[in-house]
Amino acid sequence: MFLRRLPAAAIATIATVATPRGLATAGGEGRQLLLRQLFEASSCTYTYLLADARSGDAVIIDPVLETVPRDLRLLRELGLTLRYAANTHCHADHVTGSGALRRALGCVSAASRASGACADLRLGEGDELRFGDMAFTGDALLIRGCGRTDFQQGCARTLHRSVHERIFTLPESCRVYPGHDYAGHTVSTVGEERRHNPRLTLGADDFVALMERLELPRPRLMDIAIPANLRCGIQDEP
Amino acid sequence: MFLRRLPAAAIATIATVATPRGLATAGGEGRQLLLRQLFEASSCTYTYLLADARSGDAVIIDPVLETVPRDLRLLRELGLTLRYAANTHCHADHVTGSGALRRALGCVSAASRASGACADLRLGEGDELRFGDMAFTGDALLIRGCGRTDFQQGCARTLHRSVHERIFTLPESCRVYPGHDYAGHTVSTVGEERRHNPRLTLGADDFVALMERLELPRPRLMDIAIPANLRCGIQDEP
Repeated sequence: MFLRRLPAAAIATIATVATPRGLATAGGEGRQLLLRQLFEASSCTYTYLLADARSGDAVIIDPVLETVPRDLRLLRELGLTLRYAANTHCHADHVTGSGALRRALGCVSAASRASGACADLRLGEGDELRFGDMAFTGDALLIRGCGRTDFQQGCARTLHRSVHERIFTLPESCRVYPGHDYAGHTVSTVGEERRHNPRLTLGADDFVALMERLELPRPRLMDIAIPANLRCGIQDEP
Repeated sequence: MFLRRLPAAAIATIATVATPRGLATAGGEGRQLLLRQLFEASSCTYTYLLADARSGDAVIIDPVLETVPRDLRLLRELGLTLRYAANTHCHADHVTGSGALRRALGCVSAASRASGACADLRLGEGDELRFGDMAFTGDALLIRGCGRTDFQQGCARTLHRSVHERIFTLPESCRVYPGHDYAGHTVSTVGEERRHNPRLTLGADDFVALMERLELPRPRLMDIAIPANLRCGIQDEP
């Protein structure tokens, strides 16, 4: 939910530019990046499937427990081998699918060390997983919005600094893929958010004051989701 | 809903290949194609905004009345001039936003002649609007599914022939962007649907038999949506 709890996977920038063809196919020649954006409607969550189309190695970001069967089917249909199931943070609004995917496929789970969540691979601030000219911003930066800072270890000032120092310094054309969207948007760019994000265009003090005034309801599934996500989404184990 | 009622806009194939940078930004040099996929949750409808990033000329495909304010804001933020508002067919599940967009911006509305819907530009079978290495398949071909053929002028045999002759003959890597998705998928490819679409991999006779057995409920908004869409979504005019 906040950048300081995000693993590096949440802000993966890339050296290799994928061809448009590669973005949508697992076939073809040379190095190609496959990207599939997937949606879970009850929590408005975006899951991202990325793969090297040549080797078939794949990574899934922020999988949701309820849509694991869909994701397993898609991996099988595309002939991909899931290497990593990564969470950008310990989700408060849905149970992660990473534990179920790890059980089914033997992939490595990854999460930030700061989140406190179990994972095979625990990432620190500044670590990068390189994928393409795109940033997976989790719940830190949303399209024309941002994540909440009023529970867990949230801090509006840290979020403002993180977005400005770590995301807004990426190239203007870098695509922004968020963890959620509530208005039907699917993608933005760093340049667009720098100019049009109504919250993050504010200075730090105004941003903090705005975030303190929001008075949002408690996330519906928080008491189920957070304990389960601290155990990789496996709810029936100690 | 059926390919024979789809205008050519619904199967726009392209000569110009967009750069990945161009897919997400309206800035930059040279010819770039901007593509934004937008979602309307109550009818699970995808709206597509396409633009030539150099000139700022834009086309919107299958806009929804309820999300017109979002789309107007996005056009303004991206500095685009909407030239066309096109419908792939006369929608039975939502009221089109094309009339409201035409009123607000003076754009040209487009629809297929066969749909019977009002439009400034009425397209015939075989007409093409060229955009990119991608097909906007309306409700003819969905991801691992297809549109209904049990009302309006639907015909399962015509749909099967249209998909096989007009969409499955496109390049394997051609991206498929449907008019709806009910499982959280956002994009597929021609090759994937040729191999994994559970309905369209059937022969024509088996497909027709399957479609006749579906016994789907009547679309909830059909009696409101179809008459309104025949008048470009303007409900308070003759």
